Amino acid sequence: MDERLEKQLKFLLEIDRMKEISRQTYLADGSRKENDAEHSFHLAVMAYLLAEYSNEPINREKTMMMVLVHDLVEIDAGDTYAYDTEGAKTKEKREQSAAGRIFGLLPEDQGAELRALWEEFEAGTTPEARFAAVLDHMQPVLLTDAADGKSWKEHGVKTSWIRRRNRGNELGSETLADVILGFIERNVDKGNIIDD
Amino acid sequence: MDERLEKQLKFLLEIDRMKEISRQTYLADGSRKENDAEHSFHLAVMAYLLAEYSNEPINREKTMMMVLVHDLVEIDAGDTYAYDTEGAKTKEKREQSAAGRIFGLLPEDQGAELRALWEEFEAGTTPEARFAAVLDHMQPVLLTDAADGKSWKEHGVKTSWIRRRNRGNELGSETLADVILGFIERNVDKGNIIDD
Repeated sequence: MDERLEKQLKFLLEIDRMKEISRQTYLADGSRKENDAEHSFHLAVMAYLLAEYSNEPINREKTMMMVLVHDLVEIDAGDTYAYDTEGAKTKEKREQSAAGRIFGLLPEDQGAELRALWEEFEAGTTPEARFAAVLDHMQPVLLTDAADGKSWKEHGVKTSWIRRRNRGNELGSETLADVILGFIERNVDKGNIIDD
Repeated sequence: MDERLEKQLKFLLEIDRMKEISRQTYLADGSRKENDAEHSFHLAVMAYLLAEYSNEPINREKTMMMVLVHDLVEIDAGDTYAYDTEGAKTKEKREQSAAGRIFGLLPEDQGAELRALWEEFEAGTTPEARFAAVLDHMQPVLLTDAADGKSWKEHGVKTSWIRRRNRGNELGSETLADVILGFIERNVDKGNIIDD
């Protein structure tokens, strides 16, 4: 096998570990928490089907790959819960170091391409990155609403936290930003989110 | 919320069930079996990174979406193990009926588009479908090789079965078909696959 293909297969085996990184979000039926591979699968399908709601035209293939790679750094850095303020302090450093190792497994051209996609997602300065961020915020809201607020109740999530997390969604998609707000209001009414 | 978006969200919640459909393949570390959402995540990344090995030029975005939807029918029909000859007899009927219900949740245009993608995958008559099939065959081989043949040993898999399953791979990708054959030979030598 040539070196290029060997590197690609090594990377593809490495990302198998995404299946063992647990998130705080439960599946829609509340039976267990989902993992990063499952979350990324869900986002890729969402990117394809909901692209029409992006404020600006987007390259759909690029957006799909962006959401598929956006959490790969968590293989080394772990998942930092959206409302974990302590973890957030060291998140960037941990993730930069992870990106070097993980994308470094690939042939140079593909490693650089995927790392750039991840950096673009993190920077949030392109139409694709802004839209991907809305999807990344919406997916756990959709699941947690279906699971009757399970993870919100467990963590005592407050409207101020969730509004801060979702600030800027309207830059990616006004339509989906409204959908998220609707879900939040409904769950405040149900007592699943604390209105502070 | 308008009806179109409501249908899209209903479909997106429905596919959450992909995370609970267990396959026979173990994760690379052998710790547990993987599920359909994880398998589909893996295939989508493979489609992007390995497209260069397709015998014919392919539309990469289309191939990614094809692998993301290729197992959705299993939400109703369940996973039929590649070497389950009894299950294979009823597979098509079960899956056709599932396709009607599941893709029918979407707005008509998107439902028809995704169903056509799935039918195309099943028919295997386009470059994208031929390449997607090779990936679908290669991913479990890659994982099972890493897991020291765990699921092959459990099922007493024979070279005749695995060769029949992998027949036609060379039509999608000569390079990846060779990779798969290399993995099979290595596992015959290790006693993980029974040479019959």
